[in-house]
Amino acid sequence: MQELEQLSTLTDLAVEARNLAVERTGGEIQGVAVEEEEKENVKVTRIQVMNQQAAQRIGKAPGNYITIESESLRVADKLTQEYISGVLSDEINKLINYNALQPGMQGEPTILVVGLGNWNATPDALGPEVIHHLLVTRHLYDSSPADAKQGMRPVCALAPGVLGLTGIETAEIIRGVVDRVHPNLIIAIDALAAKESSRLASTIQISDTGIYPGSGLGKNRVGITQEDMGVPVLAIGMPTVINSVNIVNDTIKQLMNNPNVQPNLRGSLQQNNNHQQIIQNILQPFMGDLIVSPKGIDQLIRDTSKIIAGGINVALHPDIKAEDVSLYLQ
Amino acid sequence: MQELEQLSTLTDLAVEARNLAVERTGGEIQGVAVEEEEKENVKVTRIQVMNQQAAQRIGKAPGNYITIESESLRVADKLTQEYISGVLSDEINKLINYNALQPGMQGEPTILVVGLGNWNATPDALGPEVIHHLLVTRHLYDSSPADAKQGMRPVCALAPGVLGLTGIETAEIIRGVVDRVHPNLIIAIDALAAKESSRLASTIQISDTGIYPGSGLGKNRVGITQEDMGVPVLAIGMPTVINSVNIVNDTIKQLMNNPNVQPNLRGSLQQNNNHQQIIQNILQPFMGDLIVSPKGIDQLIRDTSKIIAGGINVALHPDIKAEDVSLYLQ
Amino acid sequence: MQELEQLSTLTDLAVEARNLAVERTGGEIQGVAVEEEEKENVKVTRIQVMNQQAAQRIGKAPGNYITIESESLRVADKLTQEYISGVLSDEINKLINYNALQPGMQGEPTILVVGLGNWNATPDALGPEVIHHLLVTRHLYDSSPADAKQGMRPVCALAPGVLGLTGIETAEIIRGVVDRVHPNLIIAIDALAAKESSRLASTIQISDTGIYPGSGLGKNRVGITQEDMGVPVLAIGMPTVINSVNIVNDTIKQLMNNPNVQPNLRGSLQQNNNHQQIIQNILQPFMGDLIVSPKGIDQLIRDTSKIIAGGINVALHPDIKAEDVSLYLQ
Amino acid sequence: MQELEQLSTLTDLAVEARNLAVERTGGEIQGVAVEEEEKENVKVTRIQVMNQQAAQRIGKAPGNYITIESESLRVADKLTQEYISGVLSDEINKLINYNALQPGMQGEPTILVVGLGNWNATPDALGPEVIHHLLVTRHLYDSSPADAKQGMRPVCALAPGVLGLTGIETAEIIRGVVDRVHPNLIIAIDALAAKESSRLASTIQISDTGIYPGSGLGKNRVGITQEDMGVPVLAIGMPTVINSVNIVNDTIKQLMNNPNVQPNLRGSLQQNNNHQQIIQNILQPFMGDLIVSPKGIDQLIRDTSKIIAGGINVALHPDIKAEDVSLYLQ
Repeated sequence: MQELEQLSTLTDLAVEARNLAVERTGGEIQGVAVEEEEKENVKVTRIQVMNQQAAQRIGKAPGNYITIESESLRVADKLTQEYISGVLSDEINKLINYNALQPGMQGEPTILVVGLGNWNATPDALGPEVIHHLLVTRHLYDSSPADAKQGMRPVCALAPGVLGLTGIETAEIIRGVVDRVHPNLIIAIDALAAKESSRLASTIQISDTGIYPGSGLGKNRVGITQEDMGVPVLAIGMPTVINSVNIVNDTIKQLMNNPNVQPNLRGSLQQNNNHQQIIQNILQPFMGDLIVSPKGIDQLIRDTSKIIAGGINVALHPDIKAEDVSLYLQ
Repeated sequence: MQELEQLSTLTDLAVEARNLAVERTGGEIQGVAVEEEEKENVKVTRIQVMNQQAAQRIGKAPGNYITIESESLRVADKLTQEYISGVLSDEINKLINYNALQPGMQGEPTILVVGLGNWNATPDALGPEVIHHLLVTRHLYDSSPADAKQGMRPVCALAPGVLGLTGIETAEIIRGVVDRVHPNLIIAIDALAAKESSRLASTIQISDTGIYPGSGLGKNRVGITQEDMGVPVLAIGMPTVINSVNIVNDTIKQLMNNPNVQPNLRGSLQQNNNHQQIIQNILQPFMGDLIVSPKGIDQLIRDTSKIIAGGINVALHPDIKAEDVSLYLQ
Repeated sequence: MQELEQLSTLTDLAVEARNLAVERTGGEIQGVAVEEEEKENVKVTRIQVMNQQAAQRIGKAPGNYITIESESLRVADKLTQEYISGVLSDEINKLINYNALQPGMQGEPTILVVGLGNWNATPDALGPEVIHHLLVTRHLYDSSPADAKQGMRPVCALAPGVLGLTGIETAEIIRGVVDRVHPNLIIAIDALAAKESSRLASTIQISDTGIYPGSGLGKNRVGITQEDMGVPVLAIGMPTVINSVNIVNDTIKQLMNNPNVQPNLRGSLQQNNNHQQIIQNILQPFMGDLIVSPKGIDQLIRDTSKIIAGGINVALHPDIKAEDVSLYLQ
Repeated sequence: MQELEQLSTLTDLAVEARNLAVERTGGEIQGVAVEEEEKENVKVTRIQVMNQQAAQRIGKAPGNYITIESESLRVADKLTQEYISGVLSDEINKLINYNALQPGMQGEPTILVVGLGNWNATPDALGPEVIHHLLVTRHLYDSSPADAKQGMRPVCALAPGVLGLTGIETAEIIRGVVDRVHPNLIIAIDALAAKESSRLASTIQISDTGIYPGSGLGKNRVGITQEDMGVPVLAIGMPTVINSVNIVNDTIKQLMNNPNVQPNLRGSLQQNNNHQQIIQNILQPFMGDLIVSPKGIDQLIRDTSKIIAGGINVALHPDIKAEDVSLYLQ
């Protein structure tokens, strides 16, 4: 899980970081382009962080961030799940330029999909679960007839575990495999932390900026980024936890605006705009290792990992059509 | 998981319920006897709710409640875990009067251990996990030689699942099995909800009052109680979640007393002693399905289920000594 | 897993038992009716054992046995799997007379689906896995609107475990639940043993004769049968193991008829028609606890449990159409 | 699982390969030294294949092979399991020369433990299960105080999966990680195939010759060997399956020598010393994907993976004493 760089960065989602900045400054953020599209049951938001200064303003690296939001992600209805896999597939392919992946080379690019996170901790198991359902083809590719190759791309996959399980920095394992397999693109899947509880298991973020595994430590931290891996990295994540500080903040914000709360308390809360810092100081020692996640998280991970794996399968293999997504889930 | 009868009953632990009542009334609660014992690394609190009026005062049924508290429950140190199994075994046997279980009958009483909860939802899987590690002997007992029988009792076990998995009230399944197996005692294991986050996976409660499975509905609710089962019921539980309302309440309580908070806010919070109700009203729709649990809950369930199964094994089988507890874990 | 009553009864499948009898006697078996139907990719065989004498002749109780055979059961192709769920559903409903289940009563009959076997032993986990994927509705039924009830029946489910896990005879647990829930029909799922390796994970047997759980012991054995349960029982099973004796027998049979084998050895083998008994005597101590199963048994159990659960869902709920089978799998 | 190079090589165990050669030639094998030691409940056999000619004779690469045989491996008795972990630890350390691992360097050598095999296929899951229980220390080592370092060595671990799951040759993944982590020794764990059923889950083999993962293909096959990895490799394995051909062979061998078998059949079998080839030809298409494993294989893998992980923990960390082995199992 991506660790919060600083406590003030309370979310892994660019869309939340941008909204927070807007709230703070009261206007649009310079250098951050936002485009929203409403589809049936699904809202797609495309954010572009255009430069380093804009990155400073919202606390997210320069690049593209697409969020797919749908309450239906939480609903165990297979038709809707297949539909969202299709939307996800379309958005993934907006961020991949297959032709640019291996300039001057023939054939299809090789893609390495990496499932980050800890399979022994349910809310952190999203990455390994996606790998479990993914269609892996690289080992079959060379021996396939030419016309079968037309419709598929060589895909390989890895669930490297976390530092506590392996004793090895996750990025080191991946870099080692990259140096042997020479993929043209890495897709990294990870569970994320959100600020708003309504986003848990209902928002998928795709970005072309890479990702830092949670257990990376201090200065020598190696990222799953183009800089560290030598190939482009697409990151796909979904919030499965929220920081407990956010729970309290959200409540206080609602207390401030609730007409049932006595006016003097509301007034005091509104005047004290520094309470977030105090809450953090209070909560940090008290519940440093608490996580807040939805009640049915085990089932949500099972369902959404299939939706994400399905979206990746449809995106990467031209011959898999969105309506057949469930036929190719492992 | 035991469902909160009313929102005002924010804890399954008698020790927390009693402390809340003391806080509210400012003094000892009539009809509630409390005895504390400090051991190495472990604090044992024995609460007796003496009558129906006392039960009203603290919101817990009349009977005995023993809590074993130890931070060491969270630590993956096997020697300490074995020690706590021994303490648990001693306290279990303080609440079981084996001689009274089958008056006028020869031989050892038969004990049915029931693991309540949902094996598909990590924080609710404590009961089934304990069953997984339990030493089951009833099917071997009749064919065992007389001297082997001396050291063991016939123990059988069941993990009945939850209403959502079976379509059957859990208590109905258990009652059906009781009518065929005729145990002399039921021991029911369940995951609990606590009020204070420090108690998560660090407190075990034993009581002789029975338990109501979380999914019981409305008036026809059948409990795992002596009244409904026809035999004594010992309940053993450990908190694995806290209600998100408690998180917010605890924070506000700390805000009220924190010198860094501006006096007018502190004052307003102190004046508004009805904020708990407001917070509940605000939070209920907003995060009705959120749970707060410790980060390493998967591992904590794995560890503590062995400690509890070990304690039950040592308590029920005279020949299993506390120092050999790990030899008999399944 | 159904235990072999006698060593000479080397199969749980009526179709194999009947074929063995034909081989032995050289002609049709009196009182055993056989009807075969070839469908696309699937062969359906319907055997009726008409009376007790016929039962003696083939070693299977009087009643109906339907086998659905398809190599496609082993193939991870979802369209084919859905097709076989549909065939299974049709054949299940040939053996259920819903109107007769509760004569003189209104409303839909309640059905209890029981998953026999041990979830900790892969080839024996078929029953519990089917339960895992089954649509359970009984707890929602009473509160459903009248028109929703039209399309569904109240279904409940139980995976009772095996004697070694619970210390309780499986049939006792089920009978206890039956006495509380009062279902009008029991459907029991179990992993079976076959004689021919080609049938592993490629044949499903449905019968209306009930089933004896493997761990039942000696004379007091209680079956999952109409006699012992008080309601009709439909048994659904699939072979996941073959007895190692059968492996050797099959090889020797092939040696006898293989032109590459030297004539004197072939002759000796053909003369010694008692070698099966000798082989059994030799193998029994030597590999009493060996099982023979297909290499990919873990994956096969995962796939076929969904096919069987899907078939039951479509059979029991009129509103679930065969083409939507995958939408209702849990 | 190590794939059989040729069908004539029916075992992964050097001790069986050597016994076969002795049986065939009727005497000791030149260049193959054998030393046997009987301990309480355990037999240790140390085989040295001295040169390439000797390797040809028994079909095993030059090097050392130690087998630890004990029926007690199958018995769920924890004291015996701890004892065997101790024996295993001693034998592991007979094949590791820690001083030679990093000549001229200070500090302790880094050890990478690799769990080969498929976690989704029970009899092939031994390697990943051992990794699950292993004490991993490398990430804690640098920040540990000097005196803690005295008693431990930096150990890291990886369960790379199999070709079918990742699309990447297992040896490629390991080599990539080796190039980043620079371990001084690799220990590779794998499930093996045996010839005799009595060896299933009752023999552990340690060798210093490396290992070839089962899924390696054709000529470009990369091994987990010192040649391919650049560092010494210790392989530890335990048979979990036997080839079905061996089952038939063993039976026929017993038929030949059984006085109850009619003399003319026995004679014919004895005359036909080519029946093994015929049996192979017959069985190959017929049960190419069948495996034979003990009935309780799931439980056996759970138990023996702890024994092996315990033995490795005690061997690698000087401060872990054999009697405390269970305290350090993850």
